[in-house]
Amino acid sequence: MTTLVGGIEAGGTKFVCVVGTGPEDIRAQVRIPTTTPEATLGEALAFFQQQSRHVGPLAALGIASFGPLDLHPSSPSYGFITSTAKPGWRNVDLAGPFRRALGVPVSIDTDVNGAALGEGRWGAARGLGTFVYLTVGTGIGGGGVINHQMMHGLIHPEMGHIWLPRSPKEEPSFQGVCPYHGGCFEGLASGPALHRRWGGQAEALPENHPAWELEAHYISLALANFIATLSPQRIILGGGVMAQRHLYPLVRDEVRRLLNGYIQSADILERMDAYIVPPALEGLSGAAGALALAQTRVLKDMPVLEKTG
Amino acid sequence: MTTLVGGIEAGGTKFVCVVGTGPEDIRAQVRIPTTTPEATLGEALAFFQQQSRHVGPLAALGIASFGPLDLHPSSPSYGFITSTAKPGWRNVDLAGPFRRALGVPVSIDTDVNGAALGEGRWGAARGLGTFVYLTVGTGIGGGGVINHQMMHGLIHPEMGHIWLPRSPKEEPSFQGVCPYHGGCFEGLASGPALHRRWGGQAEALPENHPAWELEAHYISLALANFIATLSPQRIILGGGVMAQRHLYPLVRDEVRRLLNGYIQSADILERMDAYIVPPALEGLSGAAGALALAQTRVLKDMPVLEKTG
Ligand SMILES: Nc1ncnc2c1ncn2[C@@H]1O[C@H](COP(=O)(O)OP(=O)(O)O)[C@@H](O)[C@H]1O
Ligand SMILES: Nc1ncnc2c1ncn2[C@@H]1O[C@H](COP(=O)(O)OP(=O)(O)O)[C@@H](O)[C@H]1O
Ligand SMILES: [Zn+2]
Ligand SMILES: [Zn+2]
Repeated sequence: MTTLVGGIEAGGTKFVCVVGTGPEDIRAQVRIPTTTPEATLGEALAFFQQQSRHVGPLAALGIASFGPLDLHPSSPSYGFITSTAKPGWRNVDLAGPFRRALGVPVSIDTDVNGAALGEGRWGAARGLGTFVYLTVGTGIGGGGVINHQMMHGLIHPEMGHIWLPRSPKEEPSFQGVCPYHGGCFEGLASGPALHRRWGGQAEALPENHPAWELEAHYISLALANFIATLSPQRIILGGGVMAQRHLYPLVRDEVRRLLNGYIQSADILERMDAYIVPPALEGLSGAAGALALAQTRVLKDMPVLEKTG
Repeated sequence: MTTLVGGIEAGGTKFVCVVGTGPEDIRAQVRIPTTTPEATLGEALAFFQQQSRHVGPLAALGIASFGPLDLHPSSPSYGFITSTAKPGWRNVDLAGPFRRALGVPVSIDTDVNGAALGEGRWGAARGLGTFVYLTVGTGIGGGGVINHQMMHGLIHPEMGHIWLPRSPKEEPSFQGVCPYHGGCFEGLASGPALHRRWGGQAEALPENHPAWELEAHYISLALANFIATLSPQRIILGGGVMAQRHLYPLVRDEVRRLLNGYIQSADILERMDAYIVPPALEGLSGAAGALALAQTRVLKDMPVLEKTG
């Protein structure tokens, strides 16, 4: 696949726009802060228009975006952001402006489905048919691939918003930060939840701070639920909060403790280090996934992922 | 599809064995109590041997069984029950005895994946590509179809064993009944959990007993989690406990309350009555699913479900 395509990882903080054929062949890249839809989409568009003139026409554009999104091709608001809590971005048409101005097919999916696709094609889930990509950052989101196909269904997964038991170590007065659910997974364990609970940036909490054991516990409860619900062959765990590398062994031990031997699989019982892993395309999972999304539009009949395993 | 096949719904209480071509064409049926593997499997085998002589040879056999099961075709314990809590049934070969004695291909899956398949082909999920079948009975189990394919992955879903927040109305001393996890979903909301918590058979609790509001709350928390994780187009809710029909409206209202408008879909916001539904093949979902499993072995290349929607 050498056709040049464009990709956008549309995040709540920044838009990463790339032109290339894959994560090892990125010809141009720009980071645009997420401000208003007009300003941010305008800058992104200008980048792709300029690139089309410089490096040649793009065959398609892929967008891996924060959401929730309308992903029903037949819907009048296909490609729109819908019920987001991010001010100014509700009911914003993401795909339309690019399709109209660039005149190329545009493929859109959630940021996490995109990242899963990128990791499946080039990263930590190569060869697997069923896996989950979870990001723990400003928000918590999960996407995935089941039997070599992207998860969509009614809309798309919103894995950050599952209900979890509160830890007995949790301050009873802490309500969680999700504007929709208070103490859902995102409400209890996102970066802003850490900030609200402990009163400082998560980045600044030392490694021996009790914050991390509690954080690992909540992430592990969620992963145990995803394992029981989806039976993934691997879980890729990324996002800003996971920059705390010491969380990985804590999470692996806690997931095993919570499952308590019920899921009889050597991947969980014996090879947990290879079961819950960081992204391999560190920082580029989403942008690479956006390129992969674009490529699925160039080769319409291409399976989402090759069946190598 | 008129080829005669056999089907077994293997449950913890009884085995339902059928011969036919679908739920409207069952030629013979027998119910065998689940006692020891030797006795129960022996009786089931005798039934199919006798039927083969009477109504003609079977083209294949499908088994929809309680589990967990080993469903990896390449595993030495393929078709075995693995870590079940049911005494005497751990590490029991279910598929092998039938394959050897009947000399037909045997297709095995979980009881709930089987029920999902049956409801997808002939029942309440006809035409849908992505849906969940959940049973609330002696155990709680969920299975499903994603993008027209059965859910397997690492092993198969075990949706009864997700972690949920305890209700503030729950007696703090109640530990739940799951031998692996105590107060997981099954530990809090299965028939035996109702029995343990309220001290009588669930069947005997009157409709205005506080048991049902709490039960509906736990089921709704779980369904909200499955919606956030899988984004199903419909949820089929069956099992002995759901014989309490008044639970359906309680669950629908509570799921909507818990999601709190976050999932922007008319199916949830406006058409909840058609979103969370009882099985259409009442009592036969699993046995019909077992027939459908057998049929997938006759027509090897047949898609699991036809893509009508
Ligand atoms: N080194 C770190 N340790 C802990 N938390 C971090 C770290 N770096 C970033 N975060 C937290 O992660 C969140 C940002 O997540 P990130 O995945 O980078 O972006 P976003 O979710 O906005 O796309 C912030 O809440 C921030 O506090
Ligand atoms: N009418 C009813 N009301 C409430 N609970 C019921 C009713 N009928 C059966 N149950 C409960 O459902 C469980 C049996 O579930 P069922 O789905 O019939 O079988 P199994 O799960 O063993 O395959 C028992 O715990 C029983 O108490
Ligand atoms: Zn939430
Ligand atoms: Zn359990």
